[in-house]
Amino acid sequence: MTSLKNHVLALHPQASKLFDDLRAGSIDAVNRGVTRDTYGKGEQFGHELVEKHARDLGLEIRHDHMRNTYMVWPGLDRQAPALVIGSHLDSVLGGGNFDGAAGVMAGLIAVQAMQQAGLKLNCDVVVMGIRAEESIWFQVSYVGSRGALGTLPASALQQRRIDTGRTLEQHMHEAGAHPESVAKGVAYLSPKNVKAFLELHIEQAPSLALTGYPLAIGTGVPGHFRFPRVKVTGEYGHVGLGRRFRHDAGVAAAEVSVALDALWQQWESTGRLMACTFGEFHTNSARHGTTIVPGEFQFSLDVRAYDDADVAELEHEFMSIVRQIEKKRGVSFDFGVRASAKVAKADLAITQQLRECAARLEFAVCDLPSPASHDSAAFHAAGIPFGFIFIRNPNGSHHPDEAMSIDDFLQGTAVLTEWLATHGDKP
Amino acid sequence: MTSLKNHVLALHPQASKLFDDLRAGSIDAVNRGVTRDTYGKGEQFGHELVEKHARDLGLEIRHDHMRNTYMVWPGLDRQAPALVIGSHLDSVLGGGNFDGAAGVMAGLIAVQAMQQAGLKLNCDVVVMGIRAEESIWFQVSYVGSRGALGTLPASALQQRRIDTGRTLEQHMHEAGAHPESVAKGVAYLSPKNVKAFLELHIEQAPSLALTGYPLAIGTGVPGHFRFPRVKVTGEYGHVGLGRRFRHDAGVAAAEVSVALDALWQQWESTGRLMACTFGEFHTNSARHGTTIVPGEFQFSLDVRAYDDADVAELEHEFMSIVRQIEKKRGVSFDFGVRASAKVAKADLAITQQLRECAARLEFAVCDLPSPASHDSAAFHAAGIPFGFIFIRNPNGSHHPDEAMSIDDFLQGTAVLTEWLATHGDKP
Repeated sequence: MTSLKNHVLALHPQASKLFDDLRAGSIDAVNRGVTRDTYGKGEQFGHELVEKHARDLGLEIRHDHMRNTYMVWPGLDRQAPALVIGSHLDSVLGGGNFDGAAGVMAGLIAVQAMQQAGLKLNCDVVVMGIRAEESIWFQVSYVGSRGALGTLPASALQQRRIDTGRTLEQHMHEAGAHPESVAKGVAYLSPKNVKAFLELHIEQAPSLALTGYPLAIGTGVPGHFRFPRVKVTGEYGHVGLGRRFRHDAGVAAAEVSVALDALWQQWESTGRLMACTFGEFHTNSARHGTTIVPGEFQFSLDVRAYDDADVAELEHEFMSIVRQIEKKRGVSFDFGVRASAKVAKADLAITQQLRECAARLEFAVCDLPSPASHDSAAFHAAGIPFGFIFIRNPNGSHHPDEAMSIDDFLQGTAVLTEWLATHGDKP
Repeated sequence: MTSLKNHVLALHPQASKLFDDLRAGSIDAVNRGVTRDTYGKGEQFGHELVEKHARDLGLEIRHDHMRNTYMVWPGLDRQAPALVIGSHLDSVLGGGNFDGAAGVMAGLIAVQAMQQAGLKLNCDVVVMGIRAEESIWFQVSYVGSRGALGTLPASALQQRRIDTGRTLEQHMHEAGAHPESVAKGVAYLSPKNVKAFLELHIEQAPSLALTGYPLAIGTGVPGHFRFPRVKVTGEYGHVGLGRRFRHDAGVAAAEVSVALDALWQQWESTGRLMACTFGEFHTNSARHGTTIVPGEFQFSLDVRAYDDADVAELEHEFMSIVRQIEKKRGVSFDFGVRASAKVAKADLAITQQLRECAARLEFAVCDLPSPASHDSAAFHAAGIPFGFIFIRNPNGSHHPDEAMSIDDFLQGTAVLTEWLATHGDKP
């Protein structure tokens, strides 16, 4: 009898084709890589592709008010809380093909392998293609998953997509979603109808590639605070202006960035995990020039850590650095919108079971705290336990060179499938 | 008999009207202030306005191949080397009304006052409206004056204006200039036909306003090195990427900026004069985002000092800082085009005479090294001695709030006129 693991590994051609088809339909000739824009054409293509594949596998198709896609493999007891396997189908502009999508494909391959192995679970297994995880488009994260869980603030609907300038509400309408349900707080998913959420995702850093592990069991998603649009106001001045007359918004921002970076270095040297990123960092292109002291500056900041107290401490440090520099340079910081997320620890039981599944299948794995945020954190916040599997990626994420081997992907999917079959919900 | 000084001071209404008319024709409703774009509509308007006024005063009008405007008050000996009084008529985007233009208006008022006083000089007095001083437009400075002096490199003609994307050559053609003469190195002005250049200019910093002097005698123009477009290349990465995997082009640039700023602070504390400005300082708006580690960064740098050895030392320091940060962060700096200018000291004799003129007229003056670059430096480089007068400006330059009182302006113009009448070229 073919083992479940071998059923998964034999689906190599199917997995390859799924990813190839996805890439072909969302390739970005201008920026290289792929672009699956949130609530736009690229994301829509991804949802239609997996939906078609799921229909071929005989799965039931459903959509919620966010236009998330649910591909349901019915269990024996349709009333039992379901196991949801999934991730997001959107990408950044000119991103990689696997960030997000791998988690959806893993669910489809797992179901197909269980079908071929003649298995049946007690509860439904739901493969979920999630909308709008990438916060770059609307400056809000976990839109699709939080919308499904009834935890997305209605104010998010008025956020504008950075490229189109149209609101999330408008984009949702165009994609066939029902944004009015967000305002009502409709929870399509809840701890009552979801037993656990399982997410497989490529690693965003090359740490697995460097240490030689093809897989890791994710132990948790960092908490963060985020200011997508901090404005620094100083005073424009002539290039010859003396030091004592300057209120240089650019140097002020640079000083904040360098101070936080030094803090990070210090934390790292004492083994405390954190990360900080000034992703957007710029003078005003309508006013700046070689001979003008910058009077305005704008930046985004994301700071993350693995303990809520650490996140709070870092925000306090950031504010304290800013206050010192405001005083020193005679500039002012307007922080704009603030976003934050609590640390989300993976479920301890599921995490241990995933380790045991990997050991049983003879795959080498290690533990890995996730460097990035994931939809799993939204499920955690809504009271649903989650488990997490990382696949190695030598080139980092959010850019065109992101890479994942199908062999590694199938190892991770085999662990996931083994877990569903042994710990999921046996009849 | 009315003194020459009183003739100048009595021209208050004429001076006010000249500046008001100039402002009205170049006002910038979008950016506030005025915009007199180099070889564009705004600058053209300025040249036409002063030319018309000069015709009303009976002056001869000439243009050179750069389409600089020369307004000539004939002397007794038309072959004698002329005294040139002037400055530039262009401005930055949304700049002030007086930066540059005041030097041209001063020449016109001086000539009118001497006409009214019934004076006559031996040589021609030439009021020169200079083109294209502001380097923000084409990333090249002193275009008009260097063109007239035959010292502008032909390569400058291919520089593109930052807003229109068209070359200097194209813009010059449209303004009726003859760029082909630049390639030939034609020198319309030289030490043979120009005895001295006199420039009156508002101060770009508020130091006179703070110390209470309405005027200062400029002792020299700083030398500088300038990189208008330094590109930093690191590696784009995911927001969660660990510190050891990052090649953050933004933090690398911030660190260079903060290091040079610290060096400036150190120089200032030991009384060494310098300034450094990162005027443009930005991530790539087509690629950046809150959740992306910046893989590219671009900045402009202008560093200036009052001694050529200091300028050289600062460039060495900058390069050394960059090399350290390239190594530390695994990023690379591409410096692009480099521009530089030697320190230009004002003529010692003229400077002393200007001080004496001010004393004779009972105006309080001090010495002031110019914080900024000026056309005077191009004359100095071509072997023509220059003298310089600053007018106080409480609000700094290169922005809409730049301010100058007509009373202060007329005091400076009276010193200039007194110098022309007593030290210029008596018959």
